[in-house]
Amino acid sequence: MRVKLTVEYIGTVYNGWQSQKGGNTVQDKLEYALGKFLGGRSVRVYAAGRTDAGVHATGQVVHFDIDKKINLFKLCLGVNLSLPNDISVTGAEYVDDDFDARFSAVGKTYRYRLYVSATRMPTLDVFRTQIYKPLDIDKMRRAADCFVGEHDFAAFQSTGSNLKGTVRTINSVDIQADGNLLDIVINGNAFLYNMVRIMCGTLVNVGLGKITAEQVAEMLCCRLKRSGKTLPAKGLTLEKVYY
Amino acid sequence: MRVKLTVEYIGTVYNGWQSQKGGNTVQDKLEYALGKFLGGRSVRVYAAGRTDAGVHATGQVVHFDIDKKINLFKLCLGVNLSLPNDISVTGAEYVDDDFDARFSAVGKTYRYRLYVSATRMPTLDVFRTQIYKPLDIDKMRRAADCFVGEHDFAAFQSTGSNLKGTVRTINSVDIQADGNLLDIVINGNAFLYNMVRIMCGTLVNVGLGKITAEQVAEMLCCRLKRSGKTLPAKGLTLEKVYY
Repeated sequence: MRVKLTVEYIGTVYNGWQSQKGGNTVQDKLEYALGKFLGGRSVRVYAAGRTDAGVHATGQVVHFDIDKKINLFKLCLGVNLSLPNDISVTGAEYVDDDFDARFSAVGKTYRYRLYVSATRMPTLDVFRTQIYKPLDIDKMRRAADCFVGEHDFAAFQSTGSNLKGTVRTINSVDIQADGNLLDIVINGNAFLYNMVRIMCGTLVNVGLGKITAEQVAEMLCCRLKRSGKTLPAKGLTLEKVYY
Repeated sequence: MRVKLTVEYIGTVYNGWQSQKGGNTVQDKLEYALGKFLGGRSVRVYAAGRTDAGVHATGQVVHFDIDKKINLFKLCLGVNLSLPNDISVTGAEYVDDDFDARFSAVGKTYRYRLYVSATRMPTLDVFRTQIYKPLDIDKMRRAADCFVGEHDFAAFQSTGSNLKGTVRTINSVDIQADGNLLDIVINGNAFLYNMVRIMCGTLVNVGLGKITAEQVAEMLCCRLKRSGKTLPAKGLTLEKVYY
């Protein structure tokens, strides 16, 4: 039987989601805890998004297979006992055998969190990137609209990506402002390596007046080199995966 | 000249605000950073609220004296360079010589953060206390109203307090619910030792149906022994001090 889990984690201290030689990944911790709960057998899980080092998730989805039906709420509680405090299984359900956490996904929502302040604000700084100068939200929203639709995002990825093709569809880019807090919420069908963090870095540059919305549109249509840093991992959260 | 500073910190790793033999307090860190910025001299700061170990602040206020006028924005930035990432001076201004961060204060606002979930949610769990079962918000609001006004809070303090008198005035207790998030925001003229965390533990017990709002009223008027645990420090933040 196939089980779909929803997993929440603070990525701060981990080398990202995916297992690797250096160890200390979220996948390692989850597979260890699942194996322990399931009586010591080796478990392999498959995730919707392989989040990078330092990136968080509230709605990561994984699937794995078990031999016999068990109470899944008990599984959540039991597995969580063997997980560190910064990782938790928040939901579990049985799914069809052809469900694949990664390949059945039709979209994902990421949230990037910023705050605007001349001085560091520790309680915000944990999960947000500090911007030192005021941002022009209207300009950012105009630029955000340029991203919506099907585009070649070749200019909005980090090197080191080995994905085939660079055309992706962005369904929405919402900029939610609340006092000095700013969230950029991006929904799309799939994302290139570091694409969200580069898009957000570009939008911040628009907000700071360094580039215009028109220049962002031009980068997209002409595959021009991007303007905008890859913002830090700590501000990024994988919020939801759609099936 | 007297300077008033606003200080924000995550209390998680500190032994509270106030200097003590064991060291590692927020006051120690701030006095060290101020002293370093002011050329190595010894600085003593006086705070509005001596927050306990693990308690956070976004609006702690302190005062201290300096000999000659300096640019206070530069002081903020300079002092922050010598502070750990979880402590920051977020504002500074000159005040009259008779201003006292503690004794001039006429009120304070504390926020206690909870979340309701059967499973641990790591991104919430950092600054919120988990409640495993649903809370009846209406009942909690009725009980919260009982606290408002001038009461003898003798039953709502931890032992070890050496304050004279136990009558305090609570101006408001707001219960802000948003999905599975619940904030209890308490404004009052002054507070006894652990009073906010005990009040919140009592309100949680009302929300869980363990006690009634009427019983809370009775505890207050008859100085009955409280019902309700002292909730964990990690959910509590000193938000604002009023002068």
